[in-house]
Amino acid sequence: MRQFSVELDELHEKVLQMGGYVESAIHRSVRALVDREPELARQVMRDEARINQMEIEVDNLTTRMFALRQPMAKDLRFLTAAMKINTDLERMGDLAVNIAQRAISLVNQPQVKPLIDIPRMAQLVESMLLRCLDAFVKGDADEATSVLTADDEVDSLRDSVYQELVAYMQSEPTTVPAAIDLMFVARNLERIADHATNIAEDVVFLVKGVDVRHHAIEVRDA
Amino acid sequence: MRQFSVELDELHEKVLQMGGYVESAIHRSVRALVDREPELARQVMRDEARINQMEIEVDNLTTRMFALRQPMAKDLRFLTAAMKINTDLERMGDLAVNIAQRAISLVNQPQVKPLIDIPRMAQLVESMLLRCLDAFVKGDADEATSVLTADDEVDSLRDSVYQELVAYMQSEPTTVPAAIDLMFVARNLERIADHATNIAEDVVFLVKGVDVRHHAIEVRDA
Repeated sequence: MRQFSVELDELHEKVLQMGGYVESAIHRSVRALVDREPELARQVMRDEARINQMEIEVDNLTTRMFALRQPMAKDLRFLTAAMKINTDLERMGDLAVNIAQRAISLVNQPQVKPLIDIPRMAQLVESMLLRCLDAFVKGDADEATSVLTADDEVDSLRDSVYQELVAYMQSEPTTVPAAIDLMFVARNLERIADHATNIAEDVVFLVKGVDVRHHAIEVRDA
Repeated sequence: MRQFSVELDELHEKVLQMGGYVESAIHRSVRALVDREPELARQVMRDEARINQMEIEVDNLTTRMFALRQPMAKDLRFLTAAMKINTDLERMGDLAVNIAQRAISLVNQPQVKPLIDIPRMAQLVESMLLRCLDAFVKGDADEATSVLTADDEVDSLRDSVYQELVAYMQSEPTTVPAAIDLMFVARNLERIADHATNIAEDVVFLVKGVDVRHHAIEVRDA
């Protein structure tokens, strides 16, 4: 039987690899939108299968490790965190596909407005994802905590995107379908940020044994 | 040490109790919307704490069972399923809160249109939730599979809600903010249905040892 630490390394690596795929899906979906490049969007849709496959592999590996080892304390928290992070990453991949679909829909419509806030949201969200994965690898609770505050910035950008789009729709009804697509893109980016926040919370729990979800304070065995 | 089967019963019961809270949150949030009753919506928002608390309890119980037992085969799948279902239920609770917030926002705006499709979506979604939880308790893969087909019906209702709302926004720009709220309500209901679908897939896997996510076919040890 291989050493548990070897399996842990493999799990780390798989989660990071999946995170890389997801990050590139987010990046490409927003590029497809901004540059009006449907081929990039279609690539995101094709690459989803790879993310889904990784989700199943990570689940299988984690489940096997739960079953064959008797992980305790921190190892147990690590496996639980990996399982949750896996689910969040897969959902982020789905959301990137949603953005890609909106990008394709938007290519066939006149441009509502130059896109400024949406690319800024995307940049923030990608940096949140990279940081929470980095925090996961390094076991760095401070870096994970920094992701939680970035989420507020994403929410406020989304608010300004909404207000602006409502004004466009009201003054020029022909922009309604395209503005709705953009509104859902902003919403999807906000939700990707929420998943990054979930991951960051899981990392804090993993490192400190403190559950920061829903502001619950509960100290576990270290 | 208590019997494993006693703990399994406790876990079953907690998941069902949480499902009951979530079902009532969905029901009330849509009633608040249809009857323009902000107090009902505020109740949904207050009750969220209880769902969040249940999520933590179920997670703690599952993690403890993973750690102290060495669950194999079906028990292992049951624990994994319970952990995933727990996450899905908590997200459904969040989505009901989102609907409640839209309901409050809509009370302060003139009514766009009589609501017909949205209550129908809600009814379908609630029935999906009840059925997937029932399938979980009974270990009934057929019932779980029936939830997967209901999801298509929800999607098609959402499409007709969208089309109708776009028409309203274009012909009467003052309806834009309220129509957007309704569009997000439809989207939230669709996402609740997606979570019910996730649960149904987990139940199929639990019962049959076959992973039906992403159309993966993989047979495990029974």
